[in-house]
Amino acid sequence: MGEDERAATIAAHMLAAEGTGPAWQIAIEEARAGYARIRMALRRDMLNGHGTAHGGMIFALADTAFAYACNSRDVKTVAAQASIVFLDAAREGEVLVAEAREQALVGRSGVYNVTVRTQEGRAIAEFQGFSRSVGGSVIGE
Amino acid sequence: MGEDERAATIAAHMLAAEGTGPAWQIAIEEARAGYARIRMALRRDMLNGHGTAHGGMIFALADTAFAYACNSRDVKTVAAQASIVFLDAAREGEVLVAEAREQALVGRSGVYNVTVRTQEGRAIAEFQGFSRSVGGSVIGE
Amino acid sequence: MGEDERAATIAAHMLAAEGTGPAWQIAIEEARAGYARIRMALRRDMLNGHGTAHGGMIFALADTAFAYACNSRDVKTVAAQASIVFLDAAREGEVLVAEAREQALVGRSGVYNVTVRTQEGRAIAEFQGFSRSVGGSVIGE
Amino acid sequence: MGEDERAATIAAHMLAAEGTGPAWQIAIEEARAGYARIRMALRRDMLNGHGTAHGGMIFALADTAFAYACNSRDVKTVAAQASIVFLDAAREGEVLVAEAREQALVGRSGVYNVTVRTQEGRAIAEFQGFSRSVGGSVIGE
Repeated sequence: MGEDERAATIAAHMLAAEGTGPAWQIAIEEARAGYARIRMALRRDMLNGHGTAHGGMIFALADTAFAYACNSRDVKTVAAQASIVFLDAAREGEVLVAEAREQALVGRSGVYNVTVRTQEGRAIAEFQGFSRSVGGSVIGE
Repeated sequence: MGEDERAATIAAHMLAAEGTGPAWQIAIEEARAGYARIRMALRRDMLNGHGTAHGGMIFALADTAFAYACNSRDVKTVAAQASIVFLDAAREGEVLVAEAREQALVGRSGVYNVTVRTQEGRAIAEFQGFSRSVGGSVIGE
Repeated sequence: MGEDERAATIAAHMLAAEGTGPAWQIAIEEARAGYARIRMALRRDMLNGHGTAHGGMIFALADTAFAYACNSRDVKTVAAQASIVFLDAAREGEVLVAEAREQALVGRSGVYNVTVRTQEGRAIAEFQGFSRSVGGSVIGE
Repeated sequence: MGEDERAATIAAHMLAAEGTGPAWQIAIEEARAGYARIRMALRRDMLNGHGTAHGGMIFALADTAFAYACNSRDVKTVAAQASIVFLDAAREGEVLVAEAREQALVGRSGVYNVTVRTQEGRAIAEFQGFSRSVGGSVIGE
């Protein structure tokens, strides 16, 4: 199994094992070593009082892409910190796409930049996640 | 109506109007001017593949407390940016409490520090949110 | 030596040992366990092209207070990450005061909130720093 | 004058006008629309007590590249917020290179990712800056 194939297996495994991904109806578009792109359609229960996507759900989507990307090399890795800038509102029914790219990997630390856009390409948020590996395999064997 | 009473009215109004708060079964413990403390019990659909609280849900709780606090003076205000540090894992059934405090308010910009702990006081995360007011009343009149 | 007295000794020791503090003419106003308050006068070589304090110098001051506070318990500790919100401009000759407070300490991780104000109390920036201890004494013995 | 040529003129103008760039002996390697790459050699007065680059100076370098990149379109723009992850230590005499790339530009808001490496390519820090334009030309005319 090549490293990109393994990364795709890991992302699918993580999505199946977690409570959140299925609850949020997250779909994986692409996962490879150091990279993940996922999408989520905005439902009414993901909106704030203004009828736009709750910042918590935008973050949750970005954080999920970050998790798949930082675990993609099959070393169990957790989020230590993350920062997000909110650029525009998104509405019910819009599909958000989060794309996570590995920016640096130094010892146990990693940095991943995640872009959140609508499916049509409108910028919604930018996210930077800081990960720490904790050791062990993600998919076991 | 005093400013603390108004802040409590605003928080209750926001919780009722949003899709997320009821979906996450968020309860307001206290809301006053520049301050909000809320809680949420961790359900299975809020967990990651390790069986602990998904970082997205921890952020979402903190972000909700931040939203109530930064709108507490009845000027519509949105999140521009936020940063979170994850300190410990939380498990299904545990109740998380997020406490948001206004740290600075300069023109249209505000900074709020939010602490997330379990009900027993174990530290889970620290959050700092940067808000920008957009004008208009939150509760209308 | 009590823990607050030791913290003051550590801060003075760190300031004397570093290249930056003397170069920036940083003065320690108060240092105790989990806390540091320091000041710095803005010189021409600390300004950006608009004639106001360069964001890098505002951060550097906050980061220095953070370093003294997170090392105050005599366990060598380094910055893993930090975030800053810029609230207002400061001018040449103004004295900036950075006040760092320990917000959480969990295992090897710490979170410190740092407020930067002018000596007159005008809010300039809010900072949140995430530290990791690396072990060993700061002042040796 | 093309947009990349104008960006190079702006960066040179900003470096000449500010107190910090000359004081830190910053050199511009490349500046074009939405992009800036600069370098700085680490001097003794930029080190912390461990004899490695002070986090404040690493941030200051990244923040300077961010400033040149976010002003590159000749609309005066300031930093609203920034976050940095520290990945490795750097020593006296090492040359640090900061490379800023525009990640998003939505209305008055921009997001820039900045990578800080040694000249040999060792990763030192990752930075994400959030800018707000304030209007007016940077170089005047």
